[in-house]
Amino acid sequence: MLHTLHSDILIQFPDWTTDFLADNNKSFPTVESRMQLVIELSRFNVEHRTGGPFGAAIFNIRTHELLSVGINLVVASNCSIAHAEMVAICSAQQQLATFDLGASKTAQYELVTSCEPCAMCFGAIPWSGIRHLVCGARDEDARNIGFDEGPKMTEWKEALESRGITVETDICRAEAAGVLQQYARGNGDIYNGRQG
Amino acid sequence: MLHTLHSDILIQFPDWTTDFLADNNKSFPTVESRMQLVIELSRFNVEHRTGGPFGAAIFNIRTHELLSVGINLVVASNCSIAHAEMVAICSAQQQLATFDLGASKTAQYELVTSCEPCAMCFGAIPWSGIRHLVCGARDEDARNIGFDEGPKMTEWKEALESRGITVETDICRAEAAGVLQQYARGNGDIYNGRQG
Repeated sequence: MLHTLHSDILIQFPDWTTDFLADNNKSFPTVESRMQLVIELSRFNVEHRTGGPFGAAIFNIRTHELLSVGINLVVASNCSIAHAEMVAICSAQQQLATFDLGASKTAQYELVTSCEPCAMCFGAIPWSGIRHLVCGARDEDARNIGFDEGPKMTEWKEALESRGITVETDICRAEAAGVLQQYARGNGDIYNGRQG
Repeated sequence: MLHTLHSDILIQFPDWTTDFLADNNKSFPTVESRMQLVIELSRFNVEHRTGGPFGAAIFNIRTHELLSVGINLVVASNCSIAHAEMVAICSAQQQLATFDLGASKTAQYELVTSCEPCAMCFGAIPWSGIRHLVCGARDEDARNIGFDEGPKMTEWKEALESRGITVETDICRAEAAGVLQQYARGNGDIYNGRQG
């Protein structure tokens, strides 16, 4: 007999996110206020030692309400695809019971991320149905502390824009990059692809 | 009060995979035998109406054992990232309780997919720790029935090879593409990015 061959996939949020969400059950009228929430997520993930220094969230920009959050849960969930943006996307879709966040006639969704997406998250964005992407730190800020952003095309912003997804960058960049540096100074794990 | 703000993420396999896995608890010594399993997965997903016409699996190529399977579960799991390759990767990692399939000193893992990866799955591969990628149908075979492969760089194979991941293509291509055509003839949903 070989081992058990398959299992369902489960990605769980750490306990601190319950209080975090209760404290943020409010309106986020400006792009900077939305980025501040995401930077706080990235910082809390470092300070609680629950994962890498990356946060993301999805907002309904018609109502300015928070729909979902994401943090990097790669190590905690034994799942290399559990980047903050992916977690925020999946959580939003499963809450709304739809695989397409663009199908709503009444809501418009924006993905806010504390750092520009890696190659995988970039490729996931067109499938998610979000209409707007907002980024804090640049991908070079992540590379500067040793994270690999993967084989991402140079013209990634244009590729998203050509699919009708707006891209805003450098929103509170210094503060977002500061969390990356805080993580590096604290000797946080810099995990990338294959270790072997 | 706003609605409940977050939820854990759960991607479940359909019931038929239990029998499928029990029937395939054996050795897969050749790349063609491994591709045959993956093509059968893609066909079963169509015939059971549990998702899109895509299958994937991860094998330990030292022992020739099957480690995990994946099928496209985007619609069934309300999750745009639940492509076959992503499901196979996450399932393998959570079974082994590691985010890095490349860290083992004794096993080497190969991802076999019934169709060349989309932009997202391509970006996910370097993070997974797999050492070998084997593809059946070409991305143009998926595009020919209306699926979008996303903004993928032209030199995607070279980008993986430069990261130490071997890429084999066109393994049983005609048969793999045949499942795509079967799905299109059956008027299967061709869902892509945003519908709205």
